[in-house]
Amino acid sequence: MEQESFLHRVLKIVKDETAPNVPLIEFRHPKELEDILKDDISISDPVSDQQLEESVRKVLHYSVKTNKPTFKNQLYGGTDPYGLAGTWIAEAFNTSQYTYEVAPVFTLIENKMLNHILKLFGFPDGDGIFSPGGSISMLYAIVAARFKAFPEVKSKGIRNLPEMVMYSSESCHYSIMKAAHWLGLGTESVRLIKSNQCGQMVIEELETALKNDINSNKVPIMVNGTAGTTVLGAIDNLDKIADICAEYGVWMHVDACWGGSLMLSQKFRTKLKGIERANSISWNPHKMAGAPLQCSLFLLKERGLLHEANSAAAQYLFQQDKFYDVRYDTGDKSIQCGRKIDAFKLWMIWKARGDIGLNQMTDYIMELAEFCLETVALRPGFRLVSAPLQCPNVCFWYIPSFMRHQTEDEKWWGLMHKITPKIKEILMTSSRMMVAYSPHKEHKNFFRLAFTFHPKLKEKDIIEMLQAIEDCGEMITIENL
Amino acid sequence: MEQESFLHRVLKIVKDETAPNVPLIEFRHPKELEDILKDDISISDPVSDQQLEESVRKVLHYSVKTNKPTFKNQLYGGTDPYGLAGTWIAEAFNTSQYTYEVAPVFTLIENKMLNHILKLFGFPDGDGIFSPGGSISMLYAIVAARFKAFPEVKSKGIRNLPEMVMYSSESCHYSIMKAAHWLGLGTESVRLIKSNQCGQMVIEELETALKNDINSNKVPIMVNGTAGTTVLGAIDNLDKIADICAEYGVWMHVDACWGGSLMLSQKFRTKLKGIERANSISWNPHKMAGAPLQCSLFLLKERGLLHEANSAAAQYLFQQDKFYDVRYDTGDKSIQCGRKIDAFKLWMIWKARGDIGLNQMTDYIMELAEFCLETVALRPGFRLVSAPLQCPNVCFWYIPSFMRHQTEDEKWWGLMHKITPKIKEILMTSSRMMVAYSPHKEHKNFFRLAFTFHPKLKEKDIIEMLQAIEDCGEMITIENL
Repeated sequence: MEQESFLHRVLKIVKDETAPNVPLIEFRHPKELEDILKDDISISDPVSDQQLEESVRKVLHYSVKTNKPTFKNQLYGGTDPYGLAGTWIAEAFNTSQYTYEVAPVFTLIENKMLNHILKLFGFPDGDGIFSPGGSISMLYAIVAARFKAFPEVKSKGIRNLPEMVMYSSESCHYSIMKAAHWLGLGTESVRLIKSNQCGQMVIEELETALKNDINSNKVPIMVNGTAGTTVLGAIDNLDKIADICAEYGVWMHVDACWGGSLMLSQKFRTKLKGIERANSISWNPHKMAGAPLQCSLFLLKERGLLHEANSAAAQYLFQQDKFYDVRYDTGDKSIQCGRKIDAFKLWMIWKARGDIGLNQMTDYIMELAEFCLETVALRPGFRLVSAPLQCPNVCFWYIPSFMRHQTEDEKWWGLMHKITPKIKEILMTSSRMMVAYSPHKEHKNFFRLAFTFHPKLKEKDIIEMLQAIEDCGEMITIENL
Repeated sequence: MEQESFLHRVLKIVKDETAPNVPLIEFRHPKELEDILKDDISISDPVSDQQLEESVRKVLHYSVKTNKPTFKNQLYGGTDPYGLAGTWIAEAFNTSQYTYEVAPVFTLIENKMLNHILKLFGFPDGDGIFSPGGSISMLYAIVAARFKAFPEVKSKGIRNLPEMVMYSSESCHYSIMKAAHWLGLGTESVRLIKSNQCGQMVIEELETALKNDINSNKVPIMVNGTAGTTVLGAIDNLDKIADICAEYGVWMHVDACWGGSLMLSQKFRTKLKGIERANSISWNPHKMAGAPLQCSLFLLKERGLLHEANSAAAQYLFQQDKFYDVRYDTGDKSIQCGRKIDAFKLWMIWKARGDIGLNQMTDYIMELAEFCLETVALRPGFRLVSAPLQCPNVCFWYIPSFMRHQTEDEKWWGLMHKITPKIKEILMTSSRMMVAYSPHKEHKNFFRLAFTFHPKLKEKDIIEMLQAIEDCGEMITIENL
């Protein structure tokens, strides 16, 4: 069939459009890009395979090549080829993961992966599920914590329950705010606890907030510790959070979406000490570990709770009169009905590389980040935002020559706040690099260079990236800001 | 690199393991399968590419070939090759859809697809988002309806708001129950309105329930009409639901996850008349239309609401000081942070086939379903559960010879309730077919044969499937039940 032959073209198209000589991005502003691609993007009338290929190639030409090591714009980048092979196979087998009958082997593989990872995180008797991203995992966590505290919430809702509150550091991911709205608690139910210079939650402030709330008859249902904040890569003191949660009887969740990958390393997992004392954990192997998007886990210490909280026992799907052992039908643990077999790509990676390969990969990522941090610390014009390294995030300003040796007053910082985005613009429009920037608390816009799966990345590439930042920084004048 | 060469093997592996002579499934019970695949599934130690390929092939050997037309177990099956090509490319480009800078062309493509589909569904000025499945779309719908009624819910939560209630037919998808729990409303907030013989909501009962609730000071926030129930494929009278929603000022959502594909057909879209009067709609092109899992849309009539309800304005991602027009950063409409570029595979399908091709495909699916229904109606031993056809679901019992010409009392139906699953077991273990069964209201277990994207499926294949059911049904005796 002609249409199937298109599949044979995919590998060629992808190879051509991501070849080493292809730039990271050929940036065009939205309106301009709409003009350039008007005919290519248009639908309505069917096109031939050849026309389709031409349009697809143009689409990809103007798309970001997220696999390049100069893509440092997000907390992912660099896809493990085994993971990509896994996801291609998974897509071709187009399987939904709810019942054993539809996904017999994929169910066993999901169980295998969950058990292996649960052990790694210190929940040997735990339970878990693959979810479509860290924000959905945050919803799972709060739902589990709330259900544990008030099981009647499932049928009765929260209207007649006491006022519930949650705690997280002010440097945490924004998903807890979205979740608080969705779950009917409201964003005001989230206590954003101060974080220190390094981005870690100030534990004394947590305890004060807990006491205040308890004294005013509010019910703390969850403390969210972060292992790897989005910007600084901060890891909260999980052991101390665990102590407090134990003392006050509060559910402890750890958002380890970013930093959870450090558990793969014997050397660096100590940074997450205390995580094994949590009630639940979320981890996204699609970030540092190079699994294709999305590959996200939600783990719980207590087995059975996920099913009890989320099951709806749909008669048409989870029939109890099936001819096989229906305990292998795991789909009713999920908020989703149809669910992709995300475990498979992670299994491919793990099978090919083993614990040892993933350990090495993680150590290598941290080694590069450490090198980057040390280089930034010494390099003229660069200034670190925080040290020492927690997760492989290196945050810094580049101070162009014309800004140096001046009084760093409010006006000066106001300029720096504009300089960082301007450097990014020049980096991006010249296709040298895409790098994240952000303000954080009192700090004005700075760069965040985060390291992820890139076995080919070398120290000299890091020097080149810093050089690119410097080159672009030096192109700035007061006038063109 | 050795590891990249594995990607070149994928197409060959997939082709071999899904070849026409490969059976639909080689069923093994869970424990047996665990034994067979013990070494293949195990991880920990890394394996060579050759060993990996061997294990992958074994995994796929025992997996269900969901692309075969004899896979009639779910409301999906049959992947459009253009959609698969799209998803392979999307996976290779590994892009997250939140900001224009990371996904410039994919953002334009998502906009294009949304606008085209919004027009198709009668929301020319509407808004929408791709979500990871119909159940998450249900969450979006309730969140939107609730926010519209009480915008303060975002910050304050629902504790101090009046008691909110929702309405849906008793034949609807279970996701509304899961959503009611998650969103803090509780499952008791869902009024399951009686459905008629054909599975459609009884509108008078809806109105009575609404009046009762209003009289007791409850606030109806949403009526969920279903366009294509999971089992019978029933389409609620959407125009009448719209009348009632207009009269009582209630948000109207239409769960068209299954039946929404009928909008692709000029002939059959009239079945969904009134859908254009809804406030929101969900549609899953990954079901009938053959897009690979997951491809799911949530559409709203009111532009801006999605952003207003869901935005958290994360400073590190949705900076307002970027150098391009940040109105193209659409990610803050989403509950997710990272989000797959699901629009792209649907765009590939639409671009290749056009409106006209999708129209033909839908008509052909309905034609086959109509043929199946007529055949079942006339074929000895078969009995329809309901007619006429709404969505392409054909529901029926097969009554083995030894059960015919008897008084159909409770005991007889008790046997039929066991016979249907038993036939399924034999069909599945002999690899002839996988077909869904379910009880529904007072009806004992029956088969649901639902038609989806399968351009190669012919009438003779349907006859063969019915023959398979008959053959397996005739193998049953009272003794082996």
